[in-house]
Amino acid sequence: MPIVTIQQFPRDLSQKRELARRITEAFTEVYGAKPESVQVFFSEVDRESWAKGGVMGCDNTPG
Amino acid sequence: MPIVTIQQFPRDLSQKRELARRITEAFTEVYGAKPESVQVFFSEVDRESWAKGGVMGCDNTPG
Amino acid sequence: MPIVTIQQFPRDLSQKRELARRITEAFTEVYGAKPESVQVFFSEVDRESWAKGGVMGCDNTPG
Amino acid sequence: MPIVTIQQFPRDLSQKRELARRITEAFTEVYGAKPESVQVFFSEVDRESWAKGGVMGCDNTPG
Amino acid sequence: MPIVTIQQFPRDLSQKRELARRITEAFTEVYGAKPESVQVFFSEVDRESWAKGGVMGCDNTPG
Amino acid sequence: MPIVTIQQFPRDLSQKRELARRITEAFTEVYGAKPESVQVFFSEVDRESWAKGGVMGCDNTPG
Repeated sequence: MPIVTIQQFPRDLSQKRELARRITEAFTEVYGAKPESVQVFFSEVDRESWAKGGVMGCDNTPG
Repeated sequence: MPIVTIQQFPRDLSQKRELARRITEAFTEVYGAKPESVQVFFSEVDRESWAKGGVMGCDNTPG
Repeated sequence: MPIVTIQQFPRDLSQKRELARRITEAFTEVYGAKPESVQVFFSEVDRESWAKGGVMGCDNTPG
Repeated sequence: MPIVTIQQFPRDLSQKRELARRITEAFTEVYGAKPESVQVFFSEVDRESWAKGGVMGCDNTPG
Repeated sequence: MPIVTIQQFPRDLSQKRELARRITEAFTEVYGAKPESVQVFFSEVDRESWAKGGVMGCDNTPG
Repeated sequence: MPIVTIQQFPRDLSQKRELARRITEAFTEVYGAKPESVQVFFSEVDRESWAKGGVMGCDNTPG
């Protein structure tokens, strides 16, 4: 604890790596948490399994 | 917000599309929420990663 | 299964009752699920435990 | 209900089967729950989608 | 990791204590996990925030 | 999306405010996400509803 679960579209490893680093740093600096206590889970969802405004992500065409 | 996360077996896109449409409509009509504020996540699990009554879904044979 | 978890602001029981009824109906009609298989969890969060755009809900003043 | 969601690395079916059996047994013996009321979801995450101490699992080399 | 999140009705501390002990033991014996790596979260929900079969728990009268 | 859910002990509003600000900033800078698309939920748990190593947080006495 703290346990951080992120629901997001798929991202490159390099982006997830940098994000996890910065989130963990925020917990250590703001809460005084030990880095090892912070775990981050990336729960990636594609556009066929997510909807906003009642419209599936894969159906949402710009323009 | 509201954020809706659904744990379910895999379903066709057409079924998820219709379900997301109806759930979003329920929030707008019952809560008065704006459609764009409603997000629906489908978290699909297969029968080798789910158990009921202590029995894995893939082991549960009818008859 | 399906298990539906809703992250939302607190709502009256009457609103949650109506929403749960409609969501369950959607699963039975669209998926052919048995009503008893559908469980809905309301996970209510107040404005001091939720942020959007980096701003806590309780700090977000209109106007 | 109870609904148990487990965030873990991927495991063999045989291990998940035994774990689900034991967890369900614990609920029936400690809570007096009916076995059929207990559902267990295994949410498996790989080392490219999990970080501890700000370091992605796939980057964490021993030695 | 593993992280276990349990959605359930409120229970006495003594019951949660015994359940957490047994679940953790199951992970150490079945997976070979270190006890310290296992975290269990009890997410308790009352009968006004949970529905089954489209009926809120608080409305479900026996008899 | 992204939706961030944090399981943690209760914290002061000022700490949650700063953490949400920094996490949102990380998403905008690393992913190029729009700030308004980032939502952070703090799911606070007390020491009677969390266990590590099979021991409830409230039973874990130092020394």
